[in-house]
Amino acid sequence: MKRINFDHLACSPILPEAKDAMTPFLSESIGNPLSWHIFGEDSGKAIETARENVASLINARAEEIIFTSCGSESNNLAIKGIAKAYSKKGKHIIASPIEHHSVLHPLKGLEKEGYEVSWLTVDRNGMVKHEEVTDLIREDTVLVTVTSASNEIGTLEPIQKIGAIAKQSGIIFHTDAVAYAGFIPLDVHLLNVDLLSLAGNTFYGPLGTGALFVRKGIRISPLISGGIQEKGLRAGTHNVAGIVGMGVAAKKAKENLTVRTEHLRNLRDQLIKGVLDQISDSFLTGHSEERLPGHASFYIQFIEGEAMLVHLNSFGIAGTSGSTCSSQALKVSHVLKALRIDPLWAQGSLVFTLGVENTGEDIEFFLSKFPSIVERLRKMSPLVAKYQKSSNSNRWKS
Amino acid sequence: MKRINFDHLACSPILPEAKDAMTPFLSESIGNPLSWHIFGEDSGKAIETARENVASLINARAEEIIFTSCGSESNNLAIKGIAKAYSKKGKHIIASPIEHHSVLHPLKGLEKEGYEVSWLTVDRNGMVKHEEVTDLIREDTVLVTVTSASNEIGTLEPIQKIGAIAKQSGIIFHTDAVAYAGFIPLDVHLLNVDLLSLAGNTFYGPLGTGALFVRKGIRISPLISGGIQEKGLRAGTHNVAGIVGMGVAAKKAKENLTVRTEHLRNLRDQLIKGVLDQISDSFLTGHSEERLPGHASFYIQFIEGEAMLVHLNSFGIAGTSGSTCSSQALKVSHVLKALRIDPLWAQGSLVFTLGVENTGEDIEFFLSKFPSIVERLRKMSPLVAKYQKSSNSNRWKS
Repeated sequence: MKRINFDHLACSPILPEAKDAMTPFLSESIGNPLSWHIFGEDSGKAIETARENVASLINARAEEIIFTSCGSESNNLAIKGIAKAYSKKGKHIIASPIEHHSVLHPLKGLEKEGYEVSWLTVDRNGMVKHEEVTDLIREDTVLVTVTSASNEIGTLEPIQKIGAIAKQSGIIFHTDAVAYAGFIPLDVHLLNVDLLSLAGNTFYGPLGTGALFVRKGIRISPLISGGIQEKGLRAGTHNVAGIVGMGVAAKKAKENLTVRTEHLRNLRDQLIKGVLDQISDSFLTGHSEERLPGHASFYIQFIEGEAMLVHLNSFGIAGTSGSTCSSQALKVSHVLKALRIDPLWAQGSLVFTLGVENTGEDIEFFLSKFPSIVERLRKMSPLVAKYQKSSNSNRWKS
Repeated sequence: MKRINFDHLACSPILPEAKDAMTPFLSESIGNPLSWHIFGEDSGKAIETARENVASLINARAEEIIFTSCGSESNNLAIKGIAKAYSKKGKHIIASPIEHHSVLHPLKGLEKEGYEVSWLTVDRNGMVKHEEVTDLIREDTVLVTVTSASNEIGTLEPIQKIGAIAKQSGIIFHTDAVAYAGFIPLDVHLLNVDLLSLAGNTFYGPLGTGALFVRKGIRISPLISGGIQEKGLRAGTHNVAGIVGMGVAAKKAKENLTVRTEHLRNLRDQLIKGVLDQISDSFLTGHSEERLPGHASFYIQFIEGEAMLVHLNSFGIAGTSGSTCSSQALKVSHVLKALRIDPLWAQGSLVFTLGVENTGEDIEFFLSKFPSIVERLRKMSPLVAKYQKSSNSNRWKS
């Protein structure tokens, strides 16, 4: 059976070039880059090359890149690290309600420790209302954090506008660009971003790699303290092979950005049009135009997302429902909630993230199977009954 | 030039079996183990197999293993995670002064946040005085943390005795077994250990892999929060290939433990005897018998460790000085300070950690070069002058 991966934000293939570059660093000669001796030299150089490539992808300087073990660590380091380093200045943070769990959970943790978080609102397209940032900034505000694009709805957020507001007020601005980097040009200076989270696997590097951009001059407390790796900001033996793979992937992402973006946008539009045309009571989530090139997300009324995924899986097609990282959590997504989508319909959420190896035939194959899956499931869906019992039959349209 | 690695705690080669097992997980079909679909299935199974192998190495249950990105993360998670989870019970911790920086720095951080740390003392051999633990335990003690063996001096600490005391008092006991696991049999039940830190690279797995054993029933706050990976105790996309490699390395470590230990012990004794016999004013640091099988550490009077390492490096021989992870830090080691070694002589610290691929010829080659290196360096050493100026010429003997 052919496998079709429409879940690239969770599991993109590794670029052959990245894999090849990693291989020597999984061999016997591998050294600890911090060591004095010849065993460490090659590793040290390879890490610095990777650092330059990752920096170049976002127009940063190499010394502004901290390597981490994943996007979630980058987000945790950014949120907790800034909160701690600037706690004397204040304990107020401004955040969007559609952040990834690895931003959201640290924020909830800080709230328990006496920090205050002001939540921005989003419109029906999932677009953060940037003008609210101005009103929410206070004397004691230490951080604004807004994702570049949520992995669940793909809406491209007004990062540049928020960056300008934050800069004008002298407030540190962090953006989680895990779903965004490698597909939309990123320039931390143009965007006025002070911290930016990356994950290697989303742009075809290895799983379990990440980085945090920290603008020169911004202080940050380490999450993992101990050794002097990453200037003392992230202790722990480097995952040398992983970092090397991420560096090559970053280089290729920059070189091929335009080609990849165009390819993905075409496939995405084909997929979105196909679903909305062929499936009754199907709705796009997120913005129809201002969205990630390879991102198509929907809710399909009267069916649970999980059931659709199981059936798609039986045809070799992989997708996800709700937040990519918590697809086993079975909770109604906080992102769809923030978009004021009825919780009943939010259960019918489907998220497809396309990749460079996907083709028009993949989309056609999907569209040849999906309508009959939907039809079959609707016949036996408990959601139909639930909906009929609902006191206000129009609540999801409001 | 032949390369001889005597710095295995910093950079061990990867086992070919571990590397081979990793390769499929660096290919295109790799999935995120949390995903619903076929792409994630193989990864999920592979991670659980690795978890069983790592658990088996220390006689734990698979569900008691949390995968991390390195030993330093494991230590940070253990110290900060227990402190936070049990802060209502109390804010007192008992620790040894010869812990790794990734235990020490989190402890220093907690001290700033209002926690109190009582420091045990060690004897001249670096052996923690376990009987002090009994006296130091208080109503508000939440954690005892003592390394199984310091990477700098190799002394095997009385973990079982400390575990028994902690258990009797109902206090949680953590040990950093990064330098220890894979070379000495480890049984978390026999030792009464509640938390135990591991790093995959020290037993021939890949760099940038780690695990923390957390006994069932012990609560711990996550360091990296967000996703539901590792039962919510360590968010972030898994480094699937790395975890798989660490699992295979753990399996092999268990199978070959006796053979490896005997081989390393023979080489170690050959090296220690050679240095002490051939180099005047050379001293072993750590215990002469109760020490890690592959661990030989010294201080050589009248020379700086760094200078010796540079000369050894020119012959292709890799070693380290002071703490392995901070060899670029150039500070007098806190471990040697705890052993009350004169700071002047502590500068002449050398640490050699041997590995399975080392041979008797490697030791002989080293011993054929080292005496002349020492002789040459002593002729031009600034330490001789420094020492002559020293007001108390016997202070290092006291």
